[in-house]
Amino acid sequence: MIDALTLPATLTARDGEFSVRAAAPDDLEPLVALISGDPVSAARGDTASPQDRDAYARALDAIQEDPRNVQLVAERDGDVIGTLQLTLIPGISRRGSARLQVEAVRVRDDQRSAGIGRALMRWVGEVAPALGAQLVQLTSDAQRVDAHRFYERLGYEASHVGYKLHV
Amino acid sequence: MIDALTLPATLTARDGEFSVRAAAPDDLEPLVALISGDPVSAARGDTASPQDRDAYARALDAIQEDPRNVQLVAERDGDVIGTLQLTLIPGISRRGSARLQVEAVRVRDDQRSAGIGRALMRWVGEVAPALGAQLVQLTSDAQRVDAHRFYERLGYEASHVGYKLHV
Repeated sequence: MIDALTLPATLTARDGEFSVRAAAPDDLEPLVALISGDPVSAARGDTASPQDRDAYARALDAIQEDPRNVQLVAERDGDVIGTLQLTLIPGISRRGSARLQVEAVRVRDDQRSAGIGRALMRWVGEVAPALGAQLVQLTSDAQRVDAHRFYERLGYEASHVGYKLHV
Repeated sequence: MIDALTLPATLTARDGEFSVRAAAPDDLEPLVALISGDPVSAARGDTASPQDRDAYARALDAIQEDPRNVQLVAERDGDVIGTLQLTLIPGISRRGSARLQVEAVRVRDDQRSAGIGRALMRWVGEVAPALGAQLVQLTSDAQRVDAHRFYERLGYEASHVGYKLHV
């Protein structure tokens, strides 16, 4: 958990408010549903198989126990409607700047187009300086053309190529 | 420091062996020289200004004190000839997989083309599974066309777009 984050936070989308808080172990099922409900993730093996439950639970524990990581959930009326992970990475380059990295941004299908993702990402940009980060970074699968437009509208610059190697 | 890494390691380039070890505070000057000697980094503000020395020193301390980060140096005959940072990032997606992220890969100008970078990156791919990571990831500035060829020859797939937002 990144302790310097003030949580829960209340954010506003076009259809009203929602809250952002750290994910708890009880959120595992909706979290896995958000990941596996995404076709790109499902194609990478995230099928919400019961066999993978323990691996997902261990991953959530590892994230929440780390002082430079947090898995967040967006919640409305008791339902998890979105998630993202933040990782604070200290670094030498850019004059010793820390970076705030965003992974696994997902908004529930039936909540799309209401500006929930936009409110979440704007909030990330607002809280980054208080965490000591002057740079927010993320990579987006090249297949996600709509996501690219979304990030570019938020001011993100597609300045890098994102490489992955499976080992 | 990522304790599960066995360091120092001895690697072999075309012109002979070199070692990889965790950076120590005394390595700060050659580390900053490697970063600022790179034109892309220099354009981002890494000019090795004496005013930035404390920020670089604090960043190196933060990296080495973190159990999921390590700044490595490649050393030969007592000289620092290269560096890279590794960050182990726990994650929910990809069935709860951890990722090993590589940042700030630099090899000293006069040591290029001897396969030092290649030996370093191959070693990263070899040690990743022992750290619990099934995926190695990095982003490379779109201007670095030679670096892209280098990573692609090593088997990295340019599957993602890397976004940055300055805050």
